[in-house]
Amino acid sequence: MESRIDLTHGSGGRAMARLIEEIFLTAFDNDMLRQRNDQACFEVPPGRLAMTTDGYVISPVFFPGGDIGCLAVNGTINDIAMSGAKPLYLSAGFIIEEGFPIDDLRRIVHSMAGSASAAGVAIVTGDTKVVEKGKGDGIFVTTTGIGVVPEGVCISGDLAQAGDKILVSGTIGDHGTAVMVRRNNLSFGATFLSDTAPLHDLVRRMLDASPRGLHCMRDPTRGGLATTLNEFAAQSHIGMLIMETEIPMKVEVKSACEFLGLDPLYVANEGKLIAICDPAAAPLILDAMRSHPLGKDAAIIGEVQEDPNHFVQMVTAFGGRRIVQWLTGEQLPRIC
Amino acid sequence: MESRIDLTHGSGGRAMARLIEEIFLTAFDNDMLRQRNDQACFEVPPGRLAMTTDGYVISPVFFPGGDIGCLAVNGTINDIAMSGAKPLYLSAGFIIEEGFPIDDLRRIVHSMAGSASAAGVAIVTGDTKVVEKGKGDGIFVTTTGIGVVPEGVCISGDLAQAGDKILVSGTIGDHGTAVMVRRNNLSFGATFLSDTAPLHDLVRRMLDASPRGLHCMRDPTRGGLATTLNEFAAQSHIGMLIMETEIPMKVEVKSACEFLGLDPLYVANEGKLIAICDPAAAPLILDAMRSHPLGKDAAIIGEVQEDPNHFVQMVTAFGGRRIVQWLTGEQLPRIC
Repeated sequence: MESRIDLTHGSGGRAMARLIEEIFLTAFDNDMLRQRNDQACFEVPPGRLAMTTDGYVISPVFFPGGDIGCLAVNGTINDIAMSGAKPLYLSAGFIIEEGFPIDDLRRIVHSMAGSASAAGVAIVTGDTKVVEKGKGDGIFVTTTGIGVVPEGVCISGDLAQAGDKILVSGTIGDHGTAVMVRRNNLSFGATFLSDTAPLHDLVRRMLDASPRGLHCMRDPTRGGLATTLNEFAAQSHIGMLIMETEIPMKVEVKSACEFLGLDPLYVANEGKLIAICDPAAAPLILDAMRSHPLGKDAAIIGEVQEDPNHFVQMVTAFGGRRIVQWLTGEQLPRIC
Repeated sequence: MESRIDLTHGSGGRAMARLIEEIFLTAFDNDMLRQRNDQACFEVPPGRLAMTTDGYVISPVFFPGGDIGCLAVNGTINDIAMSGAKPLYLSAGFIIEEGFPIDDLRRIVHSMAGSASAAGVAIVTGDTKVVEKGKGDGIFVTTTGIGVVPEGVCISGDLAQAGDKILVSGTIGDHGTAVMVRRNNLSFGATFLSDTAPLHDLVRRMLDASPRGLHCMRDPTRGGLATTLNEFAAQSHIGMLIMETEIPMKVEVKSACEFLGLDPLYVANEGKLIAICDPAAAPLILDAMRSHPLGKDAAIIGEVQEDPNHFVQMVTAFGGRRIVQWLTGEQLPRIC
C-alpha cells in the first residue's frame, strides 16, 4: 500500500475498498463490519437507548497519554455512560487530509480498536472521506455511539435539586494541560499525561451503589468543570456552592496552568465525571467511586442550592467567595 | 449574533451555547435536543436496529438541487432505508472552519431540519467543533442514523443469487453531473439538478410489494452504479450481466458526461437505489417502484449470473460486451 492518503482513498472505488480492508476491517474486526454493508444491523435488548455523537479535531493528533483515536472512542463511550447507559455500538467517520501518513492512520485506528475492545463495545459501521491538501488538518474523527439505559435509571442535567451533593471523580485539568504543555514544547520537570479513559465501568459501580440517587452526570470536557457546573445550574434552574480546597488537582497541573495563564476550572478533562447526587446517597456513591481505579481521588466538592440567578459560587482557598462564570471566549482551541 | 463563525463557537463556553440555542435548537426543535444533555435517550420498538454513518465534505456546499445539509440528512436516511429499516433518529456533527458565514450555517441547518421533518425523523443529538482558518474547508457534516428493521426483512449485499434481477430506481448520474457542471461553471443550455432525496418511502412501498423478494439494496453514491454492482458481485461471489440500453439516463446528463470526460456509470447519485430481487418478485417490485414519484423511471437493467471471477459485464448499445470494472483512481473528488 502507498505511504500516504491520496484522493483515490476517498473515491468509493478500488483504493478505498483496499484501505477499508487493510486498515479498518483488520483492526475493528467484527461480523457486522465484515458484511461490508453501508449499515450495521443488530438486536438490542428492550428498553431505552442513549445516542450521542462527537467530532474530534484535536491538535496534535498524538499527545502524551493518548491520541485522537482512543480519545474519540473513550469520549463517545463516556457521553453514553453519563446517561447511565451501557455502551454497545459505535460508528466512526473519518475526514482525512490528502497526504496524511498511512502509518499514522493505522496507529490511530489500532488505538481506537484497543479502546473499543477494552470497553467491550464494537465499532460496527464507518465512513471515510478524503479532502485535498490544505482543506483539512491531518485527520478528523467523528464517533457516534448507542447504549442501553438500565430500567429505572433516570439521569439528566435538569434534575439537580437544592441540597444535592456535587461529586467529581478525580483530579481536574489533566487532559488540557498535557496537550498545552506538548503543544508549546514545554517541560516543567514533570510528566503531564492526558486522563483519557472510558468511564462506563466506574458509572456502573456508582449505579450499583445507588441506582436512583444519581440525578445528573456529565464529563467535563471542553470548557472544563466550570462550564459543566454552569450547564447543570442553567438546566436545573438552581445555583451551586463549591469549595476550592475540595477540588482534586495535581500540584504540577496547578503550577503549569499558572505558568500558561490558564484557569484549571476551565481546562478540559477526558477521563473525569461530575455527578450530582441525592445527599443521602452521596456517601455511598463516593465510596463506590473511590473503590474504582478511575475514581480513587473522587471528592464531594460542594452542593446545590436555591438561586434565582443560577450562579455557581466558589469559596476560595482564602475563604472569600467568587462567582465561577461561564467560559467566555476560547481558552484552548482544538483540545478534543 | 456575529456574522461569522470564530473559535469561541467551538469552545464549549457561552458563545457555543448561544450558537446551539439560536441556530440548532431553533431549527431541529424537539424535546430530546431541548434537554441539552450530551446524549439523547428514547424508547425503540423491539427488534433489530440498523445504524449507519456518513461524513459529507461536498464542494461547493450549495449546489443546484440541494446543499450539504439536505444531502447529509437524505444520505443517512437512505443508508438506513437500504437495509429495509424505517429511519427514526439522527445525530449531526459539524466541523466548521473559522470565518464560515453564520447565515450559510443557518441555511444549511434549516435545510437539514426540513429534510428530517419531511422524512419524519428527528435530529436528537449533535456536536460542533471549530477549526482555525485554513485547517478545514467551510463546513463538514457527519450524520449518523438509526432505524428499526421490520420483522422478516433480510437485505444484505451478500444475498444476490444467480437468476436474480437487477433493478435501478431511476436515471443515473444526475447528482455528480449537477455538481461538476456547477463546479466548472458550465452551461449546456439545460438545467442540471442533484437528485438528492430520501428513499425510505420508496423502499417501504417495495417491501409492501414483496417483503422477502428483496435480496440486496444500496444507493449508488460515490463510485456510481458501476461501483455498487461490483461491490454486490464481490460480496455475493457472483457475476452480473447488465444491458446498457436499459439503464435510465437523461440525455443531457449523457451529453454533459461526454463533454466532461466522465463515464456516467461511475458518477454519484443521491436519490437512486439499486435493488437485486428474486426473479419471481421483480415485476411486482418494479411496479411498486414505478407507482412512487421517486421510482417512476425504474427499470430492470440486467441479472445476476454465476461467475467465479465476479465480473460485472455489460452488453453495450452496439451489441458488444465489456467488463464494467471497479473504479480505479478518483473520478470526482468531494462529490458528497
